[in-house]
Amino acid sequence: MIYYEDMEVGSVYELGNYTVTEEEILEFARKYDPQPFHIDEEAARDSMFGGIIASGWHTASICMRLYVDAILNKAASMGSPGVDQLRWKRPVRPGDTLSGHFRITECKPFRKGIGIVKGMAELRNQEGKLVMNFLGNGMFGMREEK
Amino acid sequence: MIYYEDMEVGSVYELGNYTVTEEEILEFARKYDPQPFHIDEEAARDSMFGGIIASGWHTASICMRLYVDAILNKAASMGSPGVDQLRWKRPVRPGDTLSGHFRITECKPFRKGIGIVKGMAELRNQEGKLVMNFLGNGMFGMREEK
Repeated sequence: MIYYEDMEVGSVYELGNYTVTEEEILEFARKYDPQPFHIDEEAARDSMFGGIIASGWHTASICMRLYVDAILNKAASMGSPGVDQLRWKRPVRPGDTLSGHFRITECKPFRKGIGIVKGMAELRNQEGKLVMNFLGNGMFGMREEK
Repeated sequence: MIYYEDMEVGSVYELGNYTVTEEEILEFARKYDPQPFHIDEEAARDSMFGGIIASGWHTASICMRLYVDAILNKAASMGSPGVDQLRWKRPVRPGDTLSGHFRITECKPFRKGIGIVKGMAELRNQEGKLVMNFLGNGMFGMREEK
């Protein structure tokens, strides 16, 4: 189990890969972001994007899944107050394989037994190009209550 | 069709309501945020949250759906470079009805024919309490190319 005390500024975690299918892009977007360039192939082809692209919230959710599998479900995770500077840099298209990366930028005690860890989460595509990043804030339990 | 020129600082849009079922909370979280307090009723009961709560990314995606239905799919929407200060203020629980609200805070030309509109998106629960907010950035086509 990873506790607050185990997390250090500068530590880097590779979060693994996730391949995004067109079916999943359409399914997510029909529920949560039904803009034409996310759900309608013909409209997407005629748009500035030239084809279907994933909802930015879908991309962020995929990053979360990688982060949960690689870190949070092995840690004393206690939720998050929010994220900053979420940036969608490049479109995510059907068939893209995204790889995740997380770097800790700040650790500070929050209240008795809990610390806050800030870090930059990134997703890159199969060409190594940045598609999204954000500064996350996570609350983690301490091994020894202070 | 709503163009960049139609959007003004201070304008407020009510985005309507969305009721969140436990089934939907579990389905989203199993795919994208499988932490015990999102997917496991027993573990959630024993957690600091006292029961199943929705993934914060699910809550943000619900806000996006309300925003798309109320504004984006009636506007010359051209995607978003990102959001700032995304804050999860209170847990969202099964059966909660969330209502959305959007207030424009800044409008500025971006490049030929496109403007950027910034605004604060908010979700409140059935008790009127804020559960999430963020500062969004949207690109909108201009009616007359400038």
